[in-house]
Amino acid sequence: LQSKLPALGTTIFSQMSQLAAEHQAINLSQGFPDFPSNPRLIELLSEAARSGLNQYAPMPGVLALRQQIAALVQSCYQRQLCAEQQITVSSGATEALFVAIQALVRPGDEVIVFDPAYDSYQPAVELAGGFTVHVPLLPPLYQVDWAQLEKQISKKTRLIIVNSPHNPTGAVFSHQDWLSLQALVLKHRLYCISDEVYEHLVFDGQPQLSANQYPELAERSYIVSSFGKTFHVTGWKLGYAVASAELTAEFRKIHQYVTFSSFTPAQHAITQLLAEQPEEVKRLAAFYQLKRDQFRLGLAGSAWSLLPCRGSYFQLADYSAFSDLDDVAFCQWLTREHKVAAIPLSVFYRQAPSQRIIRFCFAKEPETLARATEILCQLS
Amino acid sequence: LQSKLPALGTTIFSQMSQLAAEHQAINLSQGFPDFPSNPRLIELLSEAARSGLNQYAPMPGVLALRQQIAALVQSCYQRQLCAEQQITVSSGATEALFVAIQALVRPGDEVIVFDPAYDSYQPAVELAGGFTVHVPLLPPLYQVDWAQLEKQISKKTRLIIVNSPHNPTGAVFSHQDWLSLQALVLKHRLYCISDEVYEHLVFDGQPQLSANQYPELAERSYIVSSFGKTFHVTGWKLGYAVASAELTAEFRKIHQYVTFSSFTPAQHAITQLLAEQPEEVKRLAAFYQLKRDQFRLGLAGSAWSLLPCRGSYFQLADYSAFSDLDDVAFCQWLTREHKVAAIPLSVFYRQAPSQRIIRFCFAKEPETLARATEILCQLS
Ligand SMILES: CSCCC(=O)C(=O)O
Ligand SMILES: CSCCC(=O)C(=O)O
Repeated sequence: LQSKLPALGTTIFSQMSQLAAEHQAINLSQGFPDFPSNPRLIELLSEAARSGLNQYAPMPGVLALRQQIAALVQSCYQRQLCAEQQITVSSGATEALFVAIQALVRPGDEVIVFDPAYDSYQPAVELAGGFTVHVPLLPPLYQVDWAQLEKQISKKTRLIIVNSPHNPTGAVFSHQDWLSLQALVLKHRLYCISDEVYEHLVFDGQPQLSANQYPELAERSYIVSSFGKTFHVTGWKLGYAVASAELTAEFRKIHQYVTFSSFTPAQHAITQLLAEQPEEVKRLAAFYQLKRDQFRLGLAGSAWSLLPCRGSYFQLADYSAFSDLDDVAFCQWLTREHKVAAIPLSVFYRQAPSQRIIRFCFAKEPETLARATEILCQLS
Repeated sequence: LQSKLPALGTTIFSQMSQLAAEHQAINLSQGFPDFPSNPRLIELLSEAARSGLNQYAPMPGVLALRQQIAALVQSCYQRQLCAEQQITVSSGATEALFVAIQALVRPGDEVIVFDPAYDSYQPAVELAGGFTVHVPLLPPLYQVDWAQLEKQISKKTRLIIVNSPHNPTGAVFSHQDWLSLQALVLKHRLYCISDEVYEHLVFDGQPQLSANQYPELAERSYIVSSFGKTFHVTGWKLGYAVASAELTAEFRKIHQYVTFSSFTPAQHAITQLLAEQPEEVKRLAAFYQLKRDQFRLGLAGSAWSLLPCRGSYFQLADYSAFSDLDDVAFCQWLTREHKVAAIPLSVFYRQAPSQRIIRFCFAKEPETLARATEILCQLS
């Protein structure tokens, strides 16, 4: 069999989580919490399943859940959505991203993504017959040079995929970034996929901004989010896509044949939780900021050099002061020899600069972070 | 936005279930049970979620579940599988079918499907840039004319998608069918996707046959099944694909970017149920045969003419004796005026013959079937 994706291996997240398990390492690689989620949510899941809600959900998602999502978007971004026609529940944000890409990208189309970028965009674009064009983010804040980016736009450019707060760098778009993006999308009649799975995790009092707040941008965008990230249940694989009625219709044409619908009891449980505790998401930023601060403080004074982290639950760290290993070898060594797993930054790039930086996930219990930073401090 | 699937509307199952809900009709359209699933399974789901198994499952699925699947395949078909390398858990059989198609079909490839066929195959093939070639099944048993089928194979033919027991017709492949399929696949070096989501539902003492039993065919096949159908939890969206190690590797490359993984607590719950009640699936055929028989008996002596049903949970019925409406109009009328929803057969065809046949789902409580058949009898 000739592979349709010959260059592709197994996602780095599976590789590192497996290596972490083999070596019983503290797993700060793949992004998921090691603490329990809201016990009320677990209770609501059991209730939904026990009450018999175990058959197919409606293809676009349970309507009451879509109404709660509309209320959430209204409350966070003051955007008014039609739950029937503008919101589709998906089997994780991953599915929403995949489907949005399939809906937009035709053979030969070019898609602008950042370098570094989350690893699922490029294969999804290539499966659709398109090509990714990689625009570098500028360290240490991993900012976009919008003038530089515009030079990469060609007649074939169909789509730009943005991600703020940004995985793996923790960068966050400013109001000016969103305006620049909107201007470019309109000027060149592009479409946009805005991956906002870490939308609630912005730190240090920055405003929580979203494509939802820029009406002309939003009109041409799929905006993707994730309940797995927001409610600490990454294994529940429940996300959603927000878009215009027209884009939503195209999304659903594909979604209905990719997964059709998502785990029914979880949809009811999250509906109910959003109804009972609508303010819960507003506490997320402070909750994760504390974890970021604990992790950073734990490494203060060590030879690790920490890059800025303005959002998401990831922290980049430069180890060039004490090791010459490349980042892939370094992560393997760190996991095997010191029992802490992380993700090499280079895997998120098409063209990685020569640098020695890795990504830690700090969505962990205080004790986990304490144990990890203690080990990391000793080793430098 | 120019649609990538311009001819496509909303799946018939969503349309009819929605119409059924609007008119409070008995819903014998979309295929799902109206009875509760195994209470032990619901308990196991709650236990898994309460015990904290709520983060990402491994991308190929929880290993213990894959081992249970290997044991199930061994016990049903005496095929020995490697759980690590030959089984991948998916977000419903729908996702497995979609991913298998993306793994195999390249732009310009031809794919043989039956006419009628389940509605998700063709759009998935077209998204991959391929074309479906439709080979008619011959009523009343909806059999394959393999010599006729072979004439449709060209140099461009890449794949054949089979489905036994067959949705929507209830046809079941004989040993001779499987041998013919295997011979053709080998002779023309095709690949095969064998959609076996109704594998346990074969009636009247027929043997339960599967691509798993034909080693040379299995070597070139993705074999897809569904826990939703087997355990009466269609809303759990849990299925799997069985294939050679090589085909599995290609499957996972795509699966990891389509949904990555599936609802974790359900994977643990089904693992445990398969361990505790391994014989349960062997009772399924008799369970559904009784429902088929009740439904058929309920319509005996009426003007409905029932076609043979040898497997699956669907029954075809010809209403030409008492109505001239086409099948789409008839199903709408039946839902609106008589509060029984069904699926028109024509939607499963590229080229539907002129006939008046609709599909009923009999995966329902005895009382539901009694009420429905009473209404259906009166109306003819
Ligand atoms: C789907 S596994 C990857 C989880 C994640 O978002 C990350 O670690 O970056
Ligand atoms: C995914 S909804 C369709 C369910 C089904 O298999 C059918 O009704 O044929």
